[in-house]
Amino acid sequence: MAVNLVAESPENLYAIDGLELGFAQAGVRKANRRDLLLISLAPGSAVAGVFTENSFAAAPVQVCRRHLAAGGPIRALLVNAGNANCGTGAQGLAAAQTCCEAVARLLGCEPTAVLPFSTGVILEPLPVDRVVAGIPDCVATLGAARWAEAASAIMTTDTVPKARSRRLALGGVPVAITGIAKGVGMLQPRMATMLAYLATDAHVAAALMPRLVREVADASFNRVSVDGDTSTNDSFILMATGRARHPVIDSAASAQYLELRAALIAVAAELAQAIARDGEGATKFITVVVEGAASEDEAHRVAKAIAHSPLVKTAFFASDPNLGRLLMAIGNAGIAGLATERIQLYLDDVEVIARGERAASYMEADGARVMKQAEIGIRVNLGRGTAQCTVWTCDFSYDYVKINAEYRT
Amino acid sequence: MAVNLVAESPENLYAIDGLELGFAQAGVRKANRRDLLLISLAPGSAVAGVFTENSFAAAPVQVCRRHLAAGGPIRALLVNAGNANCGTGAQGLAAAQTCCEAVARLLGCEPTAVLPFSTGVILEPLPVDRVVAGIPDCVATLGAARWAEAASAIMTTDTVPKARSRRLALGGVPVAITGIAKGVGMLQPRMATMLAYLATDAHVAAALMPRLVREVADASFNRVSVDGDTSTNDSFILMATGRARHPVIDSAASAQYLELRAALIAVAAELAQAIARDGEGATKFITVVVEGAASEDEAHRVAKAIAHSPLVKTAFFASDPNLGRLLMAIGNAGIAGLATERIQLYLDDVEVIARGERAASYMEADGARVMKQAEIGIRVNLGRGTAQCTVWTCDFSYDYVKINAEYRT
Repeated sequence: MAVNLVAESPENLYAIDGLELGFAQAGVRKANRRDLLLISLAPGSAVAGVFTENSFAAAPVQVCRRHLAAGGPIRALLVNAGNANCGTGAQGLAAAQTCCEAVARLLGCEPTAVLPFSTGVILEPLPVDRVVAGIPDCVATLGAARWAEAASAIMTTDTVPKARSRRLALGGVPVAITGIAKGVGMLQPRMATMLAYLATDAHVAAALMPRLVREVADASFNRVSVDGDTSTNDSFILMATGRARHPVIDSAASAQYLELRAALIAVAAELAQAIARDGEGATKFITVVVEGAASEDEAHRVAKAIAHSPLVKTAFFASDPNLGRLLMAIGNAGIAGLATERIQLYLDDVEVIARGERAASYMEADGARVMKQAEIGIRVNLGRGTAQCTVWTCDFSYDYVKINAEYRT
Repeated sequence: MAVNLVAESPENLYAIDGLELGFAQAGVRKANRRDLLLISLAPGSAVAGVFTENSFAAAPVQVCRRHLAAGGPIRALLVNAGNANCGTGAQGLAAAQTCCEAVARLLGCEPTAVLPFSTGVILEPLPVDRVVAGIPDCVATLGAARWAEAASAIMTTDTVPKARSRRLALGGVPVAITGIAKGVGMLQPRMATMLAYLATDAHVAAALMPRLVREVADASFNRVSVDGDTSTNDSFILMATGRARHPVIDSAASAQYLELRAALIAVAAELAQAIARDGEGATKFITVVVEGAASEDEAHRVAKAIAHSPLVKTAFFASDPNLGRLLMAIGNAGIAGLATERIQLYLDDVEVIARGERAASYMEADGARVMKQAEIGIRVNLGRGTAQCTVWTCDFSYDYVKINAEYRT
């Protein structure tokens, strides 16, 4: 059902020097599928992350935050699908800790050098023995050229594995970036519900990493909405192994920082869009651009109000140009003093709303033509300033209900 | 599809002295159905209203606000279904004005004594000639005992007409209350999307009416959520004809004010619950009670986060006790400093979450038993204080998508 989305060929996914990936069939929830991923990082790698804003942050998220805050080296990431280890209290924290210790023993590092991640059903105990039993297989299969398999191992209701790569040169030195992500429900821009791992062999000062990961998230994963829910387990991790031989990037004002950031954003944005294209039950991929806003935050709020509205999303599913619902959604964004008579709205190239009302030139046939497309652009101008924001989303179909009604069966 | 909801028998809907109702088949959107309602009020009636917070308030809402703000007497209300007269600019305002003038001519009052209301499709011009042509039929059919027909005339995708009555005595003098409402999509607590009209023959000072209507709305229609969207046309009007012969109620501190308010809230809450029971595609009626909050606003935010979550609502549709989604929704309410380890959650009588994690006594079979019911209670204790709030909502089914995808066809 994903909209214009195919898995990237493994040969287009570049190995990252200093990083290896391994797998296991741990049987966390279902048998006979890879559901455990281990990422191993060479010494000297710099790692930073951003996590869910949900108050019920899952146990692995709590452990990740603690291990990253400790400031020591990070040497491994362990990801299980099938169980979120959330709402599991002290036992859940102990389980995440046990997983870190098991990895640390096999890799010869400190438990605090391991970051745990979980995705799946909430409020059920993690089968920690099965996860621990799977770790030796992960270690035994470690290899640098296994990104495509890594993308598959972390899927839950995703229909297409999501992985992308890009190369750039920093001061003439070749650098590679590869990332993987999984969606696909509980998504909203505050922190798209997902797991995403972005790696590069670029050499970045550890002190700059928290800023870099936040900037990349804001321009990519924080721009996706599927259903407005935010998961308890959202995590996005940026890893820089430092194996490329360019001078270390230690200033956010440097040209190389900006070049690297742009390339990281390009890969992350493709992964973020892939998540919306593969939103649960998605049949349309929708890009919402809000411009003419007084601030970027204001533009974001309007774009989010459109992307979150079930009424807007069902109209897109039906290919019905019931475009008054877009106007309703804009009005619900809670923008104080919004002068509706200044608002313009385009559906691709079709002007639908001019000066806050139906455009004189608008013909329903034109709206209907665009609504039938698999990819649709909505552009709103608020007439209040120069700030803008883009959000990617998908429509709301029978299959969203079906997938979420039957998720555990 | 409505959950345990039947139309009230016409003989249980009390006439309100000083108020008459008339109808027409104006053909606003479809032929051969009553789609125009006129409510005529005797001189001396006091009227107040609350309206949508959507920035794109429809033309009739703008005219209502202006006419009520003018402070003159209100003598009539005109309601059309089938077209929202929203996003229609100056022409839409003129159309609403034209409707008021046509009513005023026939009833012999000022145009500013008429309040217009519209519900239906947004962004299409109101067929004002057809509405005006229907008004004489409305006037010709005016009668006091036509509340059941009034409830039917304002329906859009409602499956059951919503009308309720109640009697009380104020200082020994009998007083009647009758109300009607229509839903049923675009509903959220900020102002449930709907039209509702509540009338009484009680004698209330005009100056108290704005306060009274707001207090009644806050305890009834503002406690409903269907899909989190807020319509451009939401309106709730309270009318007091003053024909009952008790002394005028002119203080919000008086016992009679409190008695009347309680009775009005009882009727309005029943209508509000009826809207959730008849939510688009609803198969379950869900009452969310949040208690132990630091403030009522906080309790309301948590209840709303639960009632709005598509993931929670699809799990209820599936009768799947995937109750981690409730925990996810609570965590998304944005309550600063929420101590998750204090949270308790009950599904009817079943303790699901204790101290922020799965309760030791919880058995999935118990959760599954409650989830199969047509009416379900969710009770959350935040362990932060003594404030509480109740919100009524429904589940999210295939039919919600179907109804909204095909609304205009």
